[in-house]
Amino acid sequence: MKIALAQLNYIIGDFEHNYQKMASHVEKAKAAGADLVVFSELAVCGYPPRDFLEFPDFIHRCDAVVQQLAALSQDIGIIVGAPAINPVPEGKDLFNCAYLLHEGKIQHVAKKALLPTYDIFDEYRYFEPATTFNNVEFKGKKIALTVCEDIWNIGNENPLYTICPMDELTKGNPDFMINISASPFTYDKAEERIRIVRENVARYGVPMFYSNHVGAQTEILFDGASLVVNAGGVVVDEMPYFEEAFQVYDLGEVTQATENKVRPKEKIALIHDALVMGIRNYFQKLGFSKAILGLSGGIDSAVTLALAVEALGKENVLSVLMPSQFSSDHSVNDSVQLCHNLESPYKTIPIKGMFDAFMEELTPHFEGKPFNVAEENIQARSRGMLLMALSNKHGYILLNTSNKSEAAVGYGTLYGDMAGGLSVIGDVYKVDVFALARYMNRHGEVVPENIITKPPSAELRPDQKDSDSLPEYDVLDEILMLYIEQRMGPKEIIAQGHDPKLVHRILRLVNRSEYKRYQTPPMLRVSPKAFGMGRRMPIVAKYLEQS
Amino acid sequence: MKIALAQLNYIIGDFEHNYQKMASHVEKAKAAGADLVVFSELAVCGYPPRDFLEFPDFIHRCDAVVQQLAALSQDIGIIVGAPAINPVPEGKDLFNCAYLLHEGKIQHVAKKALLPTYDIFDEYRYFEPATTFNNVEFKGKKIALTVCEDIWNIGNENPLYTICPMDELTKGNPDFMINISASPFTYDKAEERIRIVRENVARYGVPMFYSNHVGAQTEILFDGASLVVNAGGVVVDEMPYFEEAFQVYDLGEVTQATENKVRPKEKIALIHDALVMGIRNYFQKLGFSKAILGLSGGIDSAVTLALAVEALGKENVLSVLMPSQFSSDHSVNDSVQLCHNLESPYKTIPIKGMFDAFMEELTPHFEGKPFNVAEENIQARSRGMLLMALSNKHGYILLNTSNKSEAAVGYGTLYGDMAGGLSVIGDVYKVDVFALARYMNRHGEVVPENIITKPPSAELRPDQKDSDSLPEYDVLDEILMLYIEQRMGPKEIIAQGHDPKLVHRILRLVNRSEYKRYQTPPMLRVSPKAFGMGRRMPIVAKYLEQS
Repeated sequence: MKIALAQLNYIIGDFEHNYQKMASHVEKAKAAGADLVVFSELAVCGYPPRDFLEFPDFIHRCDAVVQQLAALSQDIGIIVGAPAINPVPEGKDLFNCAYLLHEGKIQHVAKKALLPTYDIFDEYRYFEPATTFNNVEFKGKKIALTVCEDIWNIGNENPLYTICPMDELTKGNPDFMINISASPFTYDKAEERIRIVRENVARYGVPMFYSNHVGAQTEILFDGASLVVNAGGVVVDEMPYFEEAFQVYDLGEVTQATENKVRPKEKIALIHDALVMGIRNYFQKLGFSKAILGLSGGIDSAVTLALAVEALGKENVLSVLMPSQFSSDHSVNDSVQLCHNLESPYKTIPIKGMFDAFMEELTPHFEGKPFNVAEENIQARSRGMLLMALSNKHGYILLNTSNKSEAAVGYGTLYGDMAGGLSVIGDVYKVDVFALARYMNRHGEVVPENIITKPPSAELRPDQKDSDSLPEYDVLDEILMLYIEQRMGPKEIIAQGHDPKLVHRILRLVNRSEYKRYQTPPMLRVSPKAFGMGRRMPIVAKYLEQS
Repeated sequence: MKIALAQLNYIIGDFEHNYQKMASHVEKAKAAGADLVVFSELAVCGYPPRDFLEFPDFIHRCDAVVQQLAALSQDIGIIVGAPAINPVPEGKDLFNCAYLLHEGKIQHVAKKALLPTYDIFDEYRYFEPATTFNNVEFKGKKIALTVCEDIWNIGNENPLYTICPMDELTKGNPDFMINISASPFTYDKAEERIRIVRENVARYGVPMFYSNHVGAQTEILFDGASLVVNAGGVVVDEMPYFEEAFQVYDLGEVTQATENKVRPKEKIALIHDALVMGIRNYFQKLGFSKAILGLSGGIDSAVTLALAVEALGKENVLSVLMPSQFSSDHSVNDSVQLCHNLESPYKTIPIKGMFDAFMEELTPHFEGKPFNVAEENIQARSRGMLLMALSNKHGYILLNTSNKSEAAVGYGTLYGDMAGGLSVIGDVYKVDVFALARYMNRHGEVVPENIITKPPSAELRPDQKDSDSLPEYDVLDEILMLYIEQRMGPKEIIAQGHDPKLVHRILRLVNRSEYKRYQTPPMLRVSPKAFGMGRRMPIVAKYLEQS
């Protein structure tokens, strides 16, 4: 038996696009002599469709695509993910399903039992969990067919769940397992995914074909990396990361294989590739080709520009240098050098005229109060306005250049440097932004050395340095990581050896900045706990105000 | 037996504040001879605590407050809502509980079984559902004690759930029911809540004491309106809306009562009161007293100002008139008249200087392209920047004045008129904004008649009217309501008699504006489907692009 895995990039709600893409891969699979072609979770509508699932019209369109695909299944089996209406009135309205289509009809519907409802996932918001489990027969083979999370509770060891679907399915003695997934990328997930698939084959003693979604859906990045692992635990194939792929596997050959084919998984390289895909897909799927961004001379905008150039092409990214009276010469020179290195265009627009115009009107209303964050923000917002005006006039999308460390502590100006359609490095701590710069310089200088080595500064006051008001980034980032990713409280973080006063101050800053993060653009997600839909906090709250 | 209901306003994560407030009401209840005092759902930490529930430190602080309250329970029973750690490793880490404290100890913990996971609710993200149910004995009476949603599946008729907790508890023959809730306001919920409580007493034949949270938690508004309903279905008391309240009830008198005491529930009046509380609590809980807003001469900013004056006091709201070359005389005159009517201060700051400064720098980069949304947005953003600069200098919070109709179709400028710390009427359709204005004029003119009667215009181009690019608001709002609140698809909306071309255009506008709404401030929620945390949509999607 020959099984094709189709690791594809879907557009949410674009049923025609998704259907055409799958139909062409059904043809490809037929041409290659495949018996079965496997797509990914909720492929008909793209994942995650979120509250579109609450629209009956949306579900009917999903059903229609399943029917269209069924019509192509006369001579080939097709496994595809789609929602299905729950026929009983009790419980949620839908199931999250894997359909087997063959001989022109729906042959089997496997429902998902384990519904991730944590971090970015809201599946119990929409779906009723499955409670019964049956293997499906196809051309004389029994297949244990599951959806995504259903293979992640091996022997009931995942404390989130009380049922193990594969333990149930294995009672029917399946010949192999197929899992369709929409399992998003995080920098630490790739190893974990292989471990989980291997543990499944070790426990159940049959091979697994694992077909994952690939591509960016706004901030959620799917890395693909679909897997074929035989009963001996050999990784027969790990498909490419961050790109579409299609491959046909012979079940006999899979069973016999002895050579592991595993791809490299270096954290910074993966983050780099994930962000490039994230930018590229955001623009492609929205029908835009050109980006604009403000280049400050600092490391964040430099790395964002270099990533955008990789994603969109050097001629499609416009940098704007917007010096003020507080900008140092090296800021301008370093930015110009970066654009030269990248062969990418830039403009220079000084903000003095705008700043002066605002101050002229505002000075009488400032009542003689001293220079403070108000004047700093006027500079940042003048830059934001210039960038948005150019975007609006020429049809660019503004890329936001804030990093995760500053987003965490609220070190940024709403409607100023926090503006943009997409935040590229908003889920990357400052220390990793430096690492990304060094990574991009691995074959020669892209980001000028001076940008990497000079002390970070917002340059909104004379001689300002980030370290005037924040600790060094290696300390800051570790405290942030313990609080945000690991959900430690102040006592536990202090017990790790950090200064108590600093810990209390940083945690308060994080909590008090919630109102700013509420209004920031979506941030490409690369970590297991990114700001945005996966971290849901009240704005008005006083947790840790006193500690 | 005497039972006190304490309908209180908590601050999320402010354990000391919440404890002190409850402790003082325990004293009050003792002084009034009450046997039992009842607080609301998750009162120890405030509701909804959202992802703070994932921090073990946060849960330990909740436990500590429960212990502090237990120490006060020597001579009185205390019922209070708090999370409890799930002792078994399988399933979610927490239960959502009602504790009965008495004689210095925890006597009983009733766990919530029905976990709302829809709209703004994410309870299954944190909590494991209860599966066992026991009444609690207190001073010779048996109490069926439940948390919020657990009384909303009467006889299993709510299709969301498969279990009815009160059907289980009634097997133990309780003498009365107590439900602690954090049930948020929507303009159609008040009648519904009384109906549900009445259906419970009708089915189970015993009285119910229903203690609800009151106050605003960022955008979520809790109306209070706690209820005492006897076995005959008599509403013995409906406590006040939108304010703290405390009342002691004698069980014997409750049982005997024959007179319904129900408060009026007029939609616009309720929305008005909800918004006033929403503004007031947002400022109080963040420790701010002063608001600023831009006054355009239109109905939206007029209504927002009038609400803010009610919430914060006329001297605490500063209006700023920011005319441009496209502003009509009546805009300025009407705004001045409104401030006079309200006796509230205003400033006038023309935006010409800023606009010209931007155009001077930008014109060479606009490459001769005609006047378009870029120039319109420069005006809106200059205003936003002026308001933010004054906020930053003087410590105001900027109130956003956008309505739901324009938020829906993306008729607003990001970082311009879409800026602000809080959106006051972002969940109020334009037709209801007019109704609010008329309501506020019920005792004499507050909002000048001309503001109510003139055709709406953004005044960003010569002679611009909203109706140039949008249908009349009564038609627009009905289409939006069918799509957003009722989740109808295009076919169903057209079947209601609306123009097909218009329907397709409006639905596309709604979907395409998701990126703007992603960056807007939190909107005070008054409808069953508000933008924000209760409506979760992908930004990059093409649903209904072709329809």
